[in-house]
Amino acid sequence: MQALVFDGQLRLDNAMALPVPNEDEVLIRLTRGGICNTDLELMAGYLDFSGVLGHEFVGVVEQGPDQWIGKRVVGEINVACEQCDMCRKGIPSQCRDRHTVGIYHYPGAFADYMRLPIRNLHHVPDSVSDDRAVFVEPLAAALQITAITPISPTDRVIVLGAGKLGMLAAQVLKLTGADVVVPVRREKQARLLRQWHIPTIDMSDLPLNQAQVVVDCTGQEEGFADALQLVAPRGTIHLKSTYVGLPQANLTRVAVAELKVVGSRCGPFDAALRLLDAGLIDVTSLIEARYSLDDAPRAMAHAAEKGVLKVLLDI
Amino acid sequence: MQALVFDGQLRLDNAMALPVPNEDEVLIRLTRGGICNTDLELMAGYLDFSGVLGHEFVGVVEQGPDQWIGKRVVGEINVACEQCDMCRKGIPSQCRDRHTVGIYHYPGAFADYMRLPIRNLHHVPDSVSDDRAVFVEPLAAALQITAITPISPTDRVIVLGAGKLGMLAAQVLKLTGADVVVPVRREKQARLLRQWHIPTIDMSDLPLNQAQVVVDCTGQEEGFADALQLVAPRGTIHLKSTYVGLPQANLTRVAVAELKVVGSRCGPFDAALRLLDAGLIDVTSLIEARYSLDDAPRAMAHAAEKGVLKVLLDI
Repeated sequence: MQALVFDGQLRLDNAMALPVPNEDEVLIRLTRGGICNTDLELMAGYLDFSGVLGHEFVGVVEQGPDQWIGKRVVGEINVACEQCDMCRKGIPSQCRDRHTVGIYHYPGAFADYMRLPIRNLHHVPDSVSDDRAVFVEPLAAALQITAITPISPTDRVIVLGAGKLGMLAAQVLKLTGADVVVPVRREKQARLLRQWHIPTIDMSDLPLNQAQVVVDCTGQEEGFADALQLVAPRGTIHLKSTYVGLPQANLTRVAVAELKVVGSRCGPFDAALRLLDAGLIDVTSLIEARYSLDDAPRAMAHAAEKGVLKVLLDI
Repeated sequence: MQALVFDGQLRLDNAMALPVPNEDEVLIRLTRGGICNTDLELMAGYLDFSGVLGHEFVGVVEQGPDQWIGKRVVGEINVACEQCDMCRKGIPSQCRDRHTVGIYHYPGAFADYMRLPIRNLHHVPDSVSDDRAVFVEPLAAALQITAITPISPTDRVIVLGAGKLGMLAAQVLKLTGADVVVPVRREKQARLLRQWHIPTIDMSDLPLNQAQVVVDCTGQEEGFADALQLVAPRGTIHLKSTYVGLPQANLTRVAVAELKVVGSRCGPFDAALRLLDAGLIDVTSLIEARYSLDDAPRAMAHAAEKGVLKVLLDI
């Protein structure tokens, strides 16, 4: 089969052996993939990654238990041990011995086929096309914001970083009824946000120390510094990105203003599918370009350009 | 009157005018003061402080409403505006226009007399001596840990930084029934902790990623880095100190392990008085030395020595 591999350099492997599923796994024929910033960070050295990339995907089960054969699926990306304290607490996404599809010691989804544990599968309803279902993983990650940080409809919420994930986060947060604003520079993002009735604003016009919640999707030291300036006393900064290196952080401000800084990672697939099924999140407007798997290296280069939203792979 | 002043340099002012209370204030004759690390940080430049130092104090009301005259009191240190959103929410300690006794634009308590708003006063019961009552302010700050971060009796809790505040924090946390441990190097601290039935341990023997709560009382970049290594996934790091400068912080770990980093500042005086009245917190063992106000500069120098616990001023 064909697969997009990163092993120090990015290359297309056209003669990779088909994955052999374990007893508790299925074989999935992939139909769609989505490129995430994490993919780009892995290429920059994050987690010393080596292998098949890709963790946003849709496919059809080709091999496994009868009830799954032929089903269109998306899949959770944490392959958990089911033994550790976090698994026993029902939090497999924080499994202490987890492997992660296309990220950590588990082959990814930018390939003709992949294997995945049955317990990770979610059936995609007919109402949700492949182009929309491929957003289930990042939309679930956005929903982990509200899973971890309860938002009141009376809160002022600022989303920093109007990239792929920030644009999903803003929509999820908008559904709480809270007063959500997103500072943006790029016209494309501003236009979409206006279309979703989410006010945009110049960064310099945002009032300081007034937001109950600031969601930092920038992954930048400056983003966290901005968040500290924008959040109200006793407020919450929610970190939705990994950061390059070790940012300098004003922890004194966290103590003195009694702030909460919380992070979140993978989220609830079921909820993401429900919102897509109900048509409450616009994901197709985020699609910037699509490439065939043959063209995956070019797709990665495109996704790495500044300001580019979602690049899909048609597999 | 006599007062300890810092205005770029530390000096005793022997001819300071008596404070003139506002209409909503009382005049307090001070009897005891306690030196806090914040006093030392103010001398190092924190908040550009200039004025009479001191915010841990006990005294007797000499001028004010009849019902307060002659009463032995301690006092909250935030002088709040009573108008802003935080005040209206009942959180005057986060008042947006607050002055802070001996810390920010309000004269401190290392003096013969001070003024303070009536609403800041707390009557000290006879059961609590001056030597114990002078710990109400830092004990209340330690209690703000559990006010902000609910602790379960099933939690593993680590306190980093066995200084003045850390030794109070450890005792407060011990009362929750949680499994509290404190890594220590100094024999004096180790002896007291053993006396309080709080296990001590070598830093290097602490298991990684296992504590539900880590309280960082170090105020050091290294302390926060240790906390990140010790806390369990979905756990909480509680910041109980201000930090020097802008520490580098692994925010990626906060996001990936879905941690909560929270800070806290001033706490509930009533609760501190209740615990002291009930004899549940040992504060007198923390008294390392006492000086007269005449000798206050020497007291400050003593308090600044490494590993020294509480230095008191007899006024």
